This record gives sequence, C-alpha cells and structure tokens, in this order.
Amino acid sequence: MELRPVLYILGILLSVLALSMTIPMIADLYVGHEDWKVFFLCMVFTAFFGGALTLSNSGHNLRITHRQGFLMITLTWVALCFFSATPLWMSGLGISFTDAFFEATSGITTTGATVLTDLDNMPRGILLWRALLQWLGGIGIVLMAMSILPFLKVGGMQLFQTELSENEKAIPRTAKFASSIGSIYLALTIVNIVCYRLAGMEFFDATAHALSTISTGGFSTRDSSFTQFEGAAIEIIAITFMILGGLPFILYMKALGGDWKALFRDSQVRWFLSIVLIVTIIMTAYLLLSSHAGFGTSLLHALFNIVSVITGTGYTNEDYGRWGGLPVSIFFFLMVVGACAGSTTCGIKIFRFQVLYAVTDVQIKKLIFPNGVFIPHYNGRPIPESVPISVMSFFFLFALIFALVAVILSMMGLDFMTSMSASATALSNVGPGLGEVIGPAGTFKPLSDGAKWILSVTMILGRLELFPLLVMLSPQFWRK
Amino acid sequence: MELRPVLYILGILLSVLALSMTIPMIADLYVGHEDWKVFFLCMVFTAFFGGALTLSNSGHNLRITHRQGFLMITLTWVALCFFSATPLWMSGLGISFTDAFFEATSGITTTGATVLTDLDNMPRGILLWRALLQWLGGIGIVLMAMSILPFLKVGGMQLFQTELSENEKAIPRTAKFASSIGSIYLALTIVNIVCYRLAGMEFFDATAHALSTISTGGFSTRDSSFTQFEGAAIEIIAITFMILGGLPFILYMKALGGDWKALFRDSQVRWFLSIVLIVTIIMTAYLLLSSHAGFGTSLLHALFNIVSVITGTGYTNEDYGRWGGLPVSIFFFLMVVGACAGSTTCGIKIFRFQVLYAVTDVQIKKLIFPNGVFIPHYNGRPIPESVPISVMSFFFLFALIFALVAVILSMMGLDFMTSMSASATALSNVGPGLGEVIGPAGTFKPLSDGAKWILSVTMILGRLELFPLLVMLSPQFWRK
Repeated sequence: MELRPVLYILGILLSVLALSMTIPMIADLYVGHEDWKVFFLCMVFTAFFGGALTLSNSGHNLRITHRQGFLMITLTWVALCFFSATPLWMSGLGISFTDAFFEATSGITTTGATVLTDLDNMPRGILLWRALLQWLGGIGIVLMAMSILPFLKVGGMQLFQTELSENEKAIPRTAKFASSIGSIYLALTIVNIVCYRLAGMEFFDATAHALSTISTGGFSTRDSSFTQFEGAAIEIIAITFMILGGLPFILYMKALGGDWKALFRDSQVRWFLSIVLIVTIIMTAYLLLSSHAGFGTSLLHALFNIVSVITGTGYTNEDYGRWGGLPVSIFFFLMVVGACAGSTTCGIKIFRFQVLYAVTDVQIKKLIFPNGVFIPHYNGRPIPESVPISVMSFFFLFALIFALVAVILSMMGLDFMTSMSASATALSNVGPGLGEVIGPAGTFKPLSDGAKWILSVTMILGRLELFPLLVMLSPQFWRK
Repeated sequence: MELRPVLYILGILLSVLALSMTIPMIADLYVGHEDWKVFFLCMVFTAFFGGALTLSNSGHNLRITHRQGFLMITLTWVALCFFSATPLWMSGLGISFTDAFFEATSGITTTGATVLTDLDNMPRGILLWRALLQWLGGIGIVLMAMSILPFLKVGGMQLFQTELSENEKAIPRTAKFASSIGSIYLALTIVNIVCYRLAGMEFFDATAHALSTISTGGFSTRDSSFTQFEGAAIEIIAITFMILGGLPFILYMKALGGDWKALFRDSQVRWFLSIVLIVTIIMTAYLLLSSHAGFGTSLLHALFNIVSVITGTGYTNEDYGRWGGLPVSIFFFLMVVGACAGSTTCGIKIFRFQVLYAVTDVQIKKLIFPNGVFIPHYNGRPIPESVPISVMSFFFLFALIFALVAVILSMMGLDFMTSMSASATALSNVGPGLGEVIGPAGTFKPLSDGAKWILSVTMILGRLELFPLLVMLSPQFWRK
C-alpha cells in the first residue's frame, strides 16, 4: 500500500494541531502562567512531526483508495489524541499519561467526559486547550462525515454520497469544500460567543463554552457545568447552539446558497426535532408531577438536559441522576440515539433509525403480502440497495461492542449501572454516564487506569463509526 | 379472511388444554384437595369452547394462508394464556386475575417468572398445572418453530424451511409430523423423570421438574428452586436436559433416522455449546478468585446458572445476584442470547447471531474490497437473500421493544436494574431478572398490576418472535 498520501494528510493535520497550540500558549503568556512553556514545547514537538511528514510526502498523487482511507482516518485520530495529550500530561496539572490521554481523547472525539476536578481554579491555557480540542474535533467529524465516510461506505453513510465523495478522493477539491464548511462553523462559533457574552458570561467563559457547544463536546470551565450560570437566557442559547451543532452542516451550505427551506424539508431534521419534542413533553410532565418546580423551570431543565444528552454534548444544569427511575432510563437510551449525520454529534444517529424503521416497516408489509413489492424510502427517495445491510451491521456491531465493553468494565469492578452507562456514553461520545461515580455530578477520575484505556479506545471506536478500526483488525486488510 | 381453519385449530388446541386439566384434577382428587372441583369446572368451560369451535368449523379446507397463519398463532397463544389462567384464578390461592394471567402466561410461554410464594406448601394440583403449562408451551414452540414460523418467514426463520413449511400449509401433514416430534419430547421427559428420581428426588418433584426442565420453563415446586436439592447429580441432570431442550429438535429426528452425526455437524449447536463453554470458564475463574468455594462447586454453580439463563429456563441453585458486578452484567446479556432455533428456548437465538456475524463479516470484507463478491454462509450454505434483512429487522425490533418496555416499567416506579432486567427477562422468556425484587431470590409478586400486564404482553411478544403481534397491528393486515 502506498503510504505517502496518508502520511501527507497526517502531517497536515498535525501541523494544524501544532498551530492551534499557540492559542492556549498566548492565553497563558497573557495571564503570566508558567504553562506557556509547556504549550510551546509541545507545539515544537508536534510541528516537527507534522512538518517532517508533510514535506517528505508532498508532491505525490493526492488520490486515495479505500484501504488508504481507512488507514488514514484511524491513524490521524489516534495520532491527534496522542499529540494533544502531551500538553495536558506535561502541564502543571501533574496527571498521569493515562489521564492526559483520556482527557485529550474525550476532547477531540467531542465526548466531554473528564478526569479533571477543580476546573474553576484551573489555568486558562488548559481550559482553552480542552475547549479547542473539542472545537477541532467537531469540525473534523463534520468534514469526515461529509467527504470520506460516504466514500468508504461506512455504516450506511453512502446515503450521503455527493459528487464530492464519489469514486477515488481528490484531496484538492476536498480542501476547497472544507474551507466553506469551516467558515460556516467559525461563523456559528463567533455568533455563539457573542450570544453568551450578551447573556452575561465573561468573555473567557463565553469563548470556551461556545467552542464546546457548537461542537457538541461538553467540556465546561466549571466543575458544576451550567449549574454555575444564572438566567434562562444562557441555557436557551446553549440549547439553540447544541441543536445547531446537531443538524447536518450540508443544509447550512444549501441555506447559504439560497435554499432556506432545505433545513425544514430534510426528514432527518424533522425526526430529530420530533424526538426531542416528544421526550421533552414526557420529561416536563414527569418533573411537574414529581418535584416542586414550576412549569418554566421544569421545561427548561428537561429540554436542556435532553438536548445535551441526545446531541452527545454532556453539559448539565441539574443532577438528573436524582430525578428518579424514569429519567434515568430515558437518558440511558437517549445516549445512544445521537443527532443527524453530517453534524458534530455521534451515537447511532437519526438517519440509521429512519433506515431501520423503513426496512422493518417493509418487512412487516412483506410478511402480510409475500408477493408484494415494497421499497424502503429515506427522505423521499428509495434507499440504495447496499444501505440497509450496511446500517444494520452498524447497529449490530454497536450493540455487540456496547455489551463487550460493559462486561469488561464490570470485570474491572464497576457496578451494573456504571459499567452499562460508561460503555454507552463512551461509544456514543456523550460525556457523563449514570450513577454516583460517573453521573452528571461526578467525574471519570476514580476509575482505574485499565478502565480509562478501555474507554479511550471505545471513544475512538465510536467517533470513527466503528468500522474503520475493525477493518484494520481484519487480516484481509493487510493482504497484498 | 376465511376464519374457519383458524378457529378449527384454536378449538383443537383448547380441547387439548381442557384434556390436560384432568391431570392436576386427578392429582388433587388423589391427595383429597378441594381444588379438583376448580380444575373440573375449568376443564368443562375450556372443553365447551374448544369443542364448539372444533365442531362448528370442521370439514373445511385445511390449508392456511399467511394472514390466517399470523392470526392463528396470535389468537391461539393469547387464548391459551387466558384459559389456562382460569384454574389459577378460581383455585384456593386467592390471587387476582392479573396474577393468574401473569402466572399462566409465564408458564405457557416457558418463561418461569412467578408471582406465587410459599410454593413448598402449595397444593399439588396447582404445582402440576404450572409444570404442565410449561411442558405444553415447550412442545408448542418447537412445533411452531418447525412448521409455521419458517412458512411465515418470521425473523429469518425461513432459513429452516423444509418441505413441511413450504407454500400453503397442509394441516394433516403437520399433524403427522407433530406426533413424531411429540413422541421424542415425551420420551425425553420420561427419561428426565427417571433420572431425577434415581438421583434422589421424590416422584412428584421429579415429574414436575422434568416437565419444566425439558421445556426450559423454569417453574419449580420450591421457593428456593434447585437450592433445595442436595447433590451434584441432580444439578448435572438438570444441566443435561436444559441443554437437550435447547437443541434443535429436528436433529433428534435425524438422529433417530440413523444420522447421529447431524447433532455435531450443525453449526448452531457448535456455537451454542462454545458460548456456554467460554462463559463457564470465565465465570468459574471469577468465582474461584472471588469466593472461598472450591473448583468443583464453582464450576457447577457457574455452569448450572449459565445454562439456566442462556436457555431461558430460569432455575437457580444460588443467588447469582450476589456474585458481584461481572456475573450480573454477563447474566444480563446472556438473557437475551437464547439457544437454538427449533428448540424450546426463546430469546434472540444463536442462529440469528450467526447470521448477523456472517453478514457483518461480509460487510467488513466489502469495505476493504468494494468490488469483491462475498456471500454470507450459514451452516455451510449460502444464506438465502431474504434472510439477512429479516434477521436484522428482528434484532432491531428486539432492541426497540426492550427499550420501550424498560422505559415504561421505569415510569411505573421500578429502579434501573429492575426495569432493564425485567424487560429483558420477559422478552426473552427467561424467568428471573436482576436486583433485589425480581432477582433469582425474589418473585414478581411485589410489582404493580400495570407492570404485570405489560410483562405478560411482553412475554407473549417474545414467544411469538415479535412479528406476528406487530403484523396484526398493521392496518394493511385488515385490508380486504
């Protein structure tokens, strides 16, 4: 296999990572914190590898094949997790490499599970770095979902094939496309910062939170996450931008191209918003009946946490682990749902449920009329033949990996609810789990190193949509 | 739709049920218990309906169509649950109709979840009736899985299509086939009774337990299930016959026809036994490391409970809920696995995992070689085109119904582990769940009436392999 295009892209992405390390460095220099040296060193270290890989592999054919594609996305995400962990490891935090790797992976996969406590007193450079990792991860997944995953036909993503993802990939064209999407992403982030600032957040908090809101990441600058911020306005802004982060970014491009209705015509968007609406009604009713809070508070608490969990953000403005049996079950299942394909969110994703529903519906019709011809549809169009099996394999693998990770975690001594929810929250890149330890009010710090490594791998598996890592484990992949 | 063949078969099955009520009636007469009158009345009541339906619908065309097939299996299982609940309801137990229906449904679906306590002092008629229901349910599901489900193409069961299940169903031929399978089932039961008796059980206990062992039902005559019986011999007999109940009965027919090797050639059997073996090794090692029991005891406890859960029997010889985190997680996932298709067991079943595995494996190969041609195989043969989608729809529906029932149960106030495991154990027809209330040491008695009805419906859904009930909910089914 020709490795040069793969290493070239890895080099470029490492250079981007190195470049972004200057931001926390400048922040630490500005407030006079020692950690600026750490960011500087790590930047040099990362830039060295990035630069070397880029220079030594440039100028070649920039079209990549399927095998190169799988190798590329796996290698880049793992390498990015590793390099972005270095500043956390070497900083004044004094954490182990395991913790640093977990935190960086949780950041760049936009999971938002943390092993750090006392965030409120943490140096700004570190807080900014965590937020930046999520922001970079967010745009990374959008671009990956729009260009390379449909080309690789991972888990039914071929449904979203456009001229951009057909046949062999032409990198220059992807780069042009990436800059359009990147601009939209940046614009949304800036609007989000301004909104948070206007609603009363300090500039630094507004920036850090905007970076992890639009990327549906969920890292906060406070231990208590959104419980800290007063006023419904901030929560409504967060809800809005988490939802915006959960919609397919291709629709924003269409909207900018003049086709505003595209957003409302898309059946994935309609399903996503309907699910949020229905669950919010149930949960609000439950909170009204079971607590002493009024309608407004109940609605806001329900909506905020539901949107946070379904988009895989993982912010909390209340310890919903204490809401009782029904919310805990609902949040457990919501974790794996995810939002739209082509957004910054993770999990199984709405379009897969639509495909599964359409196929199952056709199955039931076929059982009644064995000789009838029924074709499952998605978004008003017949689903291409290869998609159902692809989506269903994804669903099966998701269930299998979920079960396997849960069993391994329970082998490491975690209780039933903790191991179940840790597996689900990592695989879906949500963030907090359920139960005392890793629930909305806890952190992943008390877990053993083994559990943290398992969960780190699970987060990467989830972020890569399961198949790429498994493809590389297959002996066929390495056959000449 | 022509209802006569459906009602004719319903009539015959109700007559069989009525006839079998004479057995507990005789038992109660023999020991001089008042309940014999109840069984007599219920027998007359059931025989009246059964007889009337048979007589008024006989002599017609005995071929049935798909729609009639779905209506038939749904109607008969629901009706059988209802009629077999009547003796429990009217007996000296003094339980509500909800409890009686739950117990009867749990019996006839071979689930084995109970709402009754103080079994040790219960009249023999009732104990025998519970055991008989499981025995009848067991043979019912074997026959259904071998004749009508492949014909209806439910959840991939068309894999097991033989000349018997092709095209429109001819009832007389099915009846002949049923009597061969029934004889094998009866013979296995008698051998099981003799073995239990020789190992030291009283004749009554041996009979009642044999009826619920070979049917992988799980009702016991003792509150403490197999904890009550001393000696490894009894447990080894139970393990053997639970496994025999979990193998495809068609292979016994082949073995009797001279092809003894068929049992070992079948890949479903090999997978099933391998899974039991691997999990037993892990669990035995865990028990050796975590408790003070010796190797023999650990192995026997592990093997007994693993076989009991995976075959959906639900006997216990230890409160495995207290074994700690790992066993609880493993038992939770084992619940839904089930054993072989065409056996008395329920759950997802091994062949579906084989199909899912084969399809996913092909998917991964296709990702690597997009232009390659790969065909998934089952048991050495290519899987027919309609099977993968059928199996995958089953898997998706199973997950969906599991989630829905778990959420509804938690809405009724059950805690996380109880609602999760109750949903899984009912849908898979296992029996006990996890946690304090419904775990191996508890019963379903404390649950609310609403929860019991939900679980009763879930047990029937699981037993009918999900689709038939859903097919009947579809408006298309009722269209002329």
